[in-house]
This record gives sequence, structure tokens and C-alpha cells, in this order.
Amino acid sequence: MRPLANLTIAVVGATGAVGKEILQLLAADGIPPDRIQPYASARSAGSTVDYGHHTLSIRDTATLTDARTPRPDIALLAASAEVALHTAPALAEAGTIVIDNSSAFRMHAGTPLVIPEVNAHDAARHNNVIANPNCSTIIMLVAATPIRNRFGVSCITASTYQAASGAGIAAMNELREQTQDVLQGEHPEPRVFKEPCAFNVFSHDSEVDPDTGLNVEEQKMIDETRKIWSDPGVTVRPTCVRVPVLRAHAESLSITTKQPASVEQVHEAFEDAAGIKVLDDRAGNAFPTSLRASNRHEVIVGRIRAHANPDGTATIELFVAGDQLLKGAALNAVQIAHLVSQ
Amino acid sequence: MRPLANLTIAVVGATGAVGKEILQLLAADGIPPDRIQPYASARSAGSTVDYGHHTLSIRDTATLTDARTPRPDIALLAASAEVALHTAPALAEAGTIVIDNSSAFRMHAGTPLVIPEVNAHDAARHNNVIANPNCSTIIMLVAATPIRNRFGVSCITASTYQAASGAGIAAMNELREQTQDVLQGEHPEPRVFKEPCAFNVFSHDSEVDPDTGLNVEEQKMIDETRKIWSDPGVTVRPTCVRVPVLRAHAESLSITTKQPASVEQVHEAFEDAAGIKVLDDRAGNAFPTSLRASNRHEVIVGRIRAHANPDGTATIELFVAGDQLLKGAALNAVQIAHLVSQ
Repeated sequence: MRPLANLTIAVVGATGAVGKEILQLLAADGIPPDRIQPYASARSAGSTVDYGHHTLSIRDTATLTDARTPRPDIALLAASAEVALHTAPALAEAGTIVIDNSSAFRMHAGTPLVIPEVNAHDAARHNNVIANPNCSTIIMLVAATPIRNRFGVSCITASTYQAASGAGIAAMNELREQTQDVLQGEHPEPRVFKEPCAFNVFSHDSEVDPDTGLNVEEQKMIDETRKIWSDPGVTVRPTCVRVPVLRAHAESLSITTKQPASVEQVHEAFEDAAGIKVLDDRAGNAFPTSLRASNRHEVIVGRIRAHANPDGTATIELFVAGDQLLKGAALNAVQIAHLVSQ
Repeated sequence: MRPLANLTIAVVGATGAVGKEILQLLAADGIPPDRIQPYASARSAGSTVDYGHHTLSIRDTATLTDARTPRPDIALLAASAEVALHTAPALAEAGTIVIDNSSAFRMHAGTPLVIPEVNAHDAARHNNVIANPNCSTIIMLVAATPIRNRFGVSCITASTYQAASGAGIAAMNELREQTQDVLQGEHPEPRVFKEPCAFNVFSHDSEVDPDTGLNVEEQKMIDETRKIWSDPGVTVRPTCVRVPVLRAHAESLSITTKQPASVEQVHEAFEDAAGIKVLDDRAGNAFPTSLRASNRHEVIVGRIRAHANPDGTATIELFVAGDQLLKGAALNAVQIAHLVSQ
């Protein structure tokens, strides 16, 4: 294919939190505005979105699969799984490469699930649909893959500190507004989240399986890790938790390796790793934070500790943070677009 | 000794976040106001504090160890380790039972370190000084001890979600004020914490050991667990993290047992456990949260999951929350006071 700048690109869900970030990233990458087709629901059609210094008109997503609509070369879907199930098959059939942020196709056998730093090679065998993994999975695996490559990994225990952005713009607005109300002594009713989100920490709001006790977010981290690593035997034990943060997820990871590992060797493993910034300043007490990760492309990794286990393996502990809207969603999707258009 | 209501009780640090909670608890327990002697720094001496419907005058802590000051039967210290090191030995020498919230005496061989639900028996062998454990340790061990009693425990991996209250009233005020400023578009300078605390998650602000990579809070959780459980061999791997929450800590715990354990058996183990409220409603997605734990005496336990390990042990996962100012500090100290005055 031709470089991304020579292709036409539909951005579906252009008014959403992730869609807006995709547009900003494409503009920053120098993709000309006449190549970009922003789509959103009928409600937003006719209004505009910013694209660099330009303003683009929003089209109705329902028209995207019309036979009369010229087919885009690439469609970046940042909408619901429902919208993805509706639009992706027709687009793919017509020759458009669909990069979907929803969970609709992630576990389909024929659909690659891609983090470019981790399994770029899988992108090549696409059938015109490539899935973008869940945000918590992406941030965990960008950090854990250099460890896997050097020492092997048998188990990851993960506790997440997840931002409101994962639930969309409405959730980010709820966090701001509810916090303001609480500071003024009011007792606002939760809307987007079932639990109050201001000054609160609560288990992830996705449905919980009555048998496993895992919520949907946790099950995604388990299933997607096995697919992305092509390792059905790896154990992933996540506990997904929401915190009152706007747009970056942090994660506390405890990783059991297959080979011995020291702190120095873990630092070496991260040295040339793509998409990672190590911040592990013990003397200055400077480590990854949600705010440091916000609006930045890399996953920040720190609090690196290593313990030797009696059986010759090691347990490596990390605290990591990544922008949920960027590397957790929009950036990863745009990176995939560059990958498949090279 | 006589019941607590017949004793004189000094509360040192009476204007602090923990001291105020101690006074409220003693008032709620029906201890008459004329038995209570609130102490604070010279700066606060002469001002007053609320005690139930009464108002008490604050005395200067510097006068507490004066030979002329009538010695209280019990002194509840909710001040710095420095103040504790200064006042506790003289008080203990004079016959006062000192219950100290600071870290000053926790690891002293002759000083019991007590969580009444866990090791009440240790309180008896005091030498007039009893130490109150660190808040994160208390909340973790109230939840983990019923599991230890039934299945044995070899290892706990803990990731904390810690409230501002652990750093005192100034930190709680900073969280409120900084959040307000950020909502108004300002960029306030951090004061109490080095990192911004509004809408942010950051590694605990205590000093980090350059060799182990553990901060002081984490080292406390390790050392104190071993002392309270009288088990120098237990492995504790904590990652301590601050979240923008006012007064309750949450913790994600992964506990390796010595015996097999199922989710049902874990529920049974918690059934008669003191100081615990189980909230594990998978269908309703209702679990422990920071706000649910706030202003409540019990540690709330939920998200109970159990995995069988190949060697016949189990890994039990829990998400727990407890009020940092109450069970994490003031309530535990008042419970100890009742225990030693029975």
C-alpha cells in the first residue's frame, strides 16, 4: 500500500474521546485534511470537528456503508461494538482496511489483535479487519513484553488504577462535575457510573461473571494477552479498579518469569524497548504517575523490583502508567494504520 | 484495671485528623468529659476541641511529662514519632499506659504491636507502651487473618489505593483545595505531597530505600506483618500508591495459602471474623469502595476469588477497603485502650 498520507481515512466516532485524539494524531502526522472523513451518529452529522488548523464537516455513520459513498482506504472505528458489527463487515468486503477500537472482533480467530510494539507481525495476516486491544491490556503488555522476550513469563498479577476516560467523554464530564458538586457540599446522584466517582475508588463497572467472579474488563485482559502473545498457557490475574483520574491508567504488576532476573537485567531489557520510558528514580521518589503519563505516547515504567524464587524463576514488580486515550486507544490504532499502509 | 470510663485519658495530638476521631470515639463510648485531657502543640494550647456535646480546653503537650501534671491512666498518642519518643518513656515510667499511633516503638522487641481482632493476646505483655500498627498493615491483616487462621498464608502481594488522610489534615485540605483549583483551570503547586494529588495516582511519598526499592510504607507492611503474626518467614510484597481519596484506603490483595481453599471456604472463614463486613455482590456489581468504607468501623471485603495451584496451595484474591482514620488509626487505638483496661 501507499503511505498513510496518500490514503483516504474515515474516522468513525469522530466526536468521541478517542475519535478526537485520532484526528489530532493524524493531523500531527501531516495527513492532509482532504484525506480525512469524520463520521459520527446522525445527531452530530452536519456539525464540525477540529482537524489541526482546519475544520471538517461530520458525516452520518449510517451513510458510510452506502454503495454511493466512495469507499475510504482505511476506516478507524472509535465507536461501540454495535456500530463496529454493523459497519466493519461491509467496509472490509468492499476493500477498506478497518481498524476497530471496540471489543467486537478482538477474539475472532481471523482478526489480528495488534500492539505494534508487541506483535506487529500479526498485522500482516489481516482480512481487512484489525482489532485494537483493550486499553488495560495494551498498557500492561507494552511493559511486560520486554520482560517476556528476555526471561519468559508464566504469570502476571495486575491491579489497575483506571481513569474515567475508558468510559468515554460522558464519564470524564461526570468526574469533573460530580467532584465540583461534592466540593460544594452537594450529594450528586451518579449517572454514567453506578458508584460515585468523585474522591472514590471502586471495582470496574463492567458486568461480573457469577462463576469466575471476573468482570468483563478483567476477562479481556486474560483473553487478549493469550491471543497477542500467542500463549494460551500464560496465567493473567487482573483486578480492575476505577480511580478518580481523567485520562491515564496506572497498573501495579507482579510478573513471574521463567528464568532468573535481577533489577539490573530488567533495566537492560527495557533499554531498547519501543514505546517505553523508564522512570525509576528511587532517590528522588520520581516514578510513573497518572498525570505524567497523560498526553504522552510512551508507557512509563518504574518501581522496578525483582525477587528470586526458590525454583529458579523470579517475580518482577513494576508500577506503570499510560495514557488511556492515546496508547490505550487512539495512538495504537493510528500506529496500526501506519503499519498496514507501509 | 478498671473499665475505660473510670480512667483518666490523655489524647495527644487532639487537633489532628486522628486525634479528633479518637475524641469522637471516646465520646460515643460514653467516657465522661471530665476524664478526657486533650493535648496538642503549644500553638494550639488554650484553644478548644469538641467532645460530644462538650467543649474541652487543649493543654500544651510539653507540660504532659511535668512532674506537677497529674499522670493520666492512659495516654493515646496521635502525634509524630518525635513527640512519641519524647513523651512515651516518661509517661510509661510513671505508670501511664501509652498507646502510640506513631512508628516510634512499633518494632521495639518489648513493645506489643496490636490489632485486637488479630493478636489481642499480645497486648497483655506490655511494659506500659503498646504500639498501633500502620494503617495499611491493619486493613490488610484484618482481612488476611481469617484466611491465615483457616488455610495458612505463605505470601501476600498487596497493591494499595491510599487516601490523603494518612498524611494528616493538611494533606486532606491540599487534596480538596488543589482539586478545586484544577477544576477552575489553575495549575497549583503541590505543598504537602511532592506530586500533584488532584486527579492523580502516584507511588507513596515516603522515602525509598536505594537498595530494596521499597518505600518506608511498604517496609512497614512487611516488618509489622511479621511481628503481628509472629511469623518471620511470611513473604509480603506491597506496592503502596496514593489515590485522590479523602479518608479510606483500599487494597488489592493476592494471598498464597498453605492449604487448598475454595471461594466458599473463604466465605466461611470470614463468617464469624471480627471487624469484617463481606460485600461481594457479583450480580449487583457491589463491592468494597473507598466511600463505602469511610466513617465505618469494619474493613469491607469483597471480589473474593480463589485459584488452585499445582502444589496444592491456593491463591486467594480480595479487594478490601477500610477507613484510614478509624480502623487504620483512631478506632484501633481506642479498641486497645478498652482491651488493656478490662
